[in-house]
Amino acid sequence: MSKQNEHKNPVPTVDTIIDNNSQVLFIKIIKEPFEGKMVFPGGFIKIGETAEEAAIREVKEETSLDVDLDHILGVYSDPKRDSRGHIMSTVFIGKISPNSQNKEPIAGDGAASIKWVNVEAIEQEDFGFDHKDILKDYIEWKNSKQTFWSSRNKSKTTG
Amino acid sequence: MSKQNEHKNPVPTVDTIIDNNSQVLFIKIIKEPFEGKMVFPGGFIKIGETAEEAAIREVKEETSLDVDLDHILGVYSDPKRDSRGHIMSTVFIGKISPNSQNKEPIAGDGAASIKWVNVEAIEQEDFGFDHKDILKDYIEWKNSKQTFWSSRNKSKTTG
Repeated sequence: MSKQNEHKNPVPTVDTIIDNNSQVLFIKIIKEPFEGKMVFPGGFIKIGETAEEAAIREVKEETSLDVDLDHILGVYSDPKRDSRGHIMSTVFIGKISPNSQNKEPIAGDGAASIKWVNVEAIEQEDFGFDHKDILKDYIEWKNSKQTFWSSRNKSKTTG
Repeated sequence: MSKQNEHKNPVPTVDTIIDNNSQVLFIKIIKEPFEGKMVFPGGFIKIGETAEEAAIREVKEETSLDVDLDHILGVYSDPKRDSRGHIMSTVFIGKISPNSQNKEPIAGDGAASIKWVNVEAIEQEDFGFDHKDILKDYIEWKNSKQTFWSSRNKSKTTG
């Protein structure tokens, strides 16, 4: 492991797309430099936890909801997607767990508020990072069930 | 980024499954502690490159072949999957690029040799890391087209 450190490898994170009747759950970020931006619940994977455990933990911390993970949408690792450094994200698709289905989400841990966004009306919203592109991939996924990554997304947008 | 370092986050790698008529390409590792084990071509993602770039680079370095990536099979991040530390892998599924289709793969960069493994005959082989489980997931993927992660795999094996 001596060759691997924060200057040599991207740092892994997770994000989770929670869809409830074509309404997708976003949080508004409190912290600079992303204050006020809408993002999927997510965060850094800690040493000793799996990506899926991190995804479930972050949803719980930021929204108070339990989530069941169903799919991986893609892995986004463009070095410029996050201004803090080279941070890559595995994006899961999940649904609210049965025991949380009648609960209202409560914003916590860096989340100022919760917002359900209709996938038909995303142009009105201000998303952080590359989460708007990821949401577009998700909308495509609903039909194609394919998987995505940053440059697949980019070649699609520009070509 | 000050909070993120090699002791706080898993280190990200990539692996690529290359299938040619139900023969999957493996390399035999030279280096200890995995000497002689069969693994998918792959390796660490470097700062500044995407996961997909790393996958293509590693296939080229280890097999001399160009590969086109088509899908993500899954993200494997069990902390115990690699004895060197907490190392997670995004596993792509690809095919040999048109310009490499008539070339024989040549082992390089840590690969002692190349072996095409028939997916019907995997029990005879000695795989490194969790690559046998990943190969089983891939065989399932060929029918289901679902995505996988370490604990989804594990719950399937044990339950």
